[in-house]
Amino acid sequence: MTTKTPVAEEGLGQEFTKHVITSFGPKTDPRLREVMGSFVQHIHDFAREVNLTVDEWLLGVEMINQAGQMSNERRNEGQLMCDVIGLETAASKNANSGTLTAILGPFWRADTPTRPNGTTISFETPKDGIVSFLHGTITCANTGKPIPNASVEVWQASTNGLYEQQDADQRDCNLRGKFITDDKGRYSFYCLKPTPYPIPEDGPAGKLLRMLDRHFYRPAHLHFMVIADGFKSVTTQIFDSDSEYLGNDTVFAVKDGLTVTFTPRKGDPEANWELEFNMSLATKKQDA
Amino acid sequence: MTTKTPVAEEGLGQEFTKHVITSFGPKTDPRLREVMGSFVQHIHDFAREVNLTVDEWLLGVEMINQAGQMSNERRNEGQLMCDVIGLETAASKNANSGTLTAILGPFWRADTPTRPNGTTISFETPKDGIVSFLHGTITCANTGKPIPNASVEVWQASTNGLYEQQDADQRDCNLRGKFITDDKGRYSFYCLKPTPYPIPEDGPAGKLLRMLDRHFYRPAHLHFMVIADGFKSVTTQIFDSDSEYLGNDTVFAVKDGLTVTFTPRKGDPEANWELEFNMSLATKKQDA
Repeated sequence: MTTKTPVAEEGLGQEFTKHVITSFGPKTDPRLREVMGSFVQHIHDFAREVNLTVDEWLLGVEMINQAGQMSNERRNEGQLMCDVIGLETAASKNANSGTLTAILGPFWRADTPTRPNGTTISFETPKDGIVSFLHGTITCANTGKPIPNASVEVWQASTNGLYEQQDADQRDCNLRGKFITDDKGRYSFYCLKPTPYPIPEDGPAGKLLRMLDRHFYRPAHLHFMVIADGFKSVTTQIFDSDSEYLGNDTVFAVKDGLTVTFTPRKGDPEANWELEFNMSLATKKQDA
Repeated sequence: MTTKTPVAEEGLGQEFTKHVITSFGPKTDPRLREVMGSFVQHIHDFAREVNLTVDEWLLGVEMINQAGQMSNERRNEGQLMCDVIGLETAASKNANSGTLTAILGPFWRADTPTRPNGTTISFETPKDGIVSFLHGTITCANTGKPIPNASVEVWQASTNGLYEQQDADQRDCNLRGKFITDDKGRYSFYCLKPTPYPIPEDGPAGKLLRMLDRHFYRPAHLHFMVIADGFKSVTTQIFDSDSEYLGNDTVFAVKDGLTVTFTPRKGDPEANWELEFNMSLATKKQDA
């Protein structure tokens, strides 16, 4: 019998891991080599550390396959599984300056329509919905100057906990829109005062949460994505300071600096609450 | 603004990871707590170590979702993705005694028929197929005594590299069968002398191999699963010492002690090659 492989008969130690990592060929992109080398090292270390069994590993494979099978253009269960273990947050870096970031989440849409400032994103306001006026200024994190023509995109769930693409009863692109800042960097719109909701429970992410004896809830929040020429984009969320689950968001997205307080609004028949939320963007140069 | 969450504004350090791990509720199974705690720790450490970006993480999510979407009862792409980074091998422990194990792989079937000893598993032998006679004895690793009534299950790919469930041109359960050892612990059957083949290239596992500048090939091998009352089961593979790819199996399953050498067989019109391969099983008690 020939001896050609470094797999130890007694076990699968660091030599085995090194063998896997050194199998990457010379044409591998250097960044991919770095990322996959670290990934293989950590996933093998994990398997060794817990003495992972084949049955346990197969349970993980089954959950991965189920996640893919449930995913489509309206749902991303693979992303949700990462979110409930904090991996999207771990990958979502803040810029060195400017507004803090938070995770994108699985409900952003690339084809959100642009709407005029001062208009609403709530086209079918539910009976228990509380309309709020949200407005603010986008500035340069370096100079403090307003940024005109920035795209401020917002999306939120309805009071039933569903985004429009999850909910046959909401019209297309309900509760989402893009607003372009005016010459003073200002945006404004009407939306719902956000409410907590559970993430989908019917897939492997829900199964994992049940197995880990955890709840399914996200605190009340709105999603933002702000894009402007010459600046680093910001993907973030704001969290209502009145909400439950701020300390134990099921997808671990809350940051202290993103917690906001809505205030009563007077003299506006359209809304009883309002919020001013200003954001700043790092210049591409400044943050490089 | 209230301060309720331990997510540091500056970054996502060990405190964040601890927050995720301590979210596991009190009713979590202790073993699951151990496994998932280690998994979260390592996957966060990985993200920090390489400064993982959202785009890189999303590429991984996309590959996971694609793996699930391609998987069905005849194909397990999630498993294959683990296999090409050595994770199934890392989880496949040897018993403390007895024949070495190797990975199950994605082509085992639960409903393989039992066949009489001395018969063939090759019902549609291809023109380039070389029939071999394979036989051996199953013994107790502790006493050396033969084990009667053990189930010796075998499966292999045809010379085109396809297992029967991948190949519309092979009959159901071609190149697979279960053989029950006789009163002297013996099994025997005719099969193909195995040949190297590439794993499926059309899914995310193939994409990953291309990105890592790696080949797709497995060395020539046969799969075995041996089950007997009172003994620990053995899932393993044997590798032809003549084969290419012994040192760089794309799924990292080769072990030195599982490399075998076929020898010419004389006086048998059915086969020109043969192999004696004996296996031993650890008793459940002895290996507990």
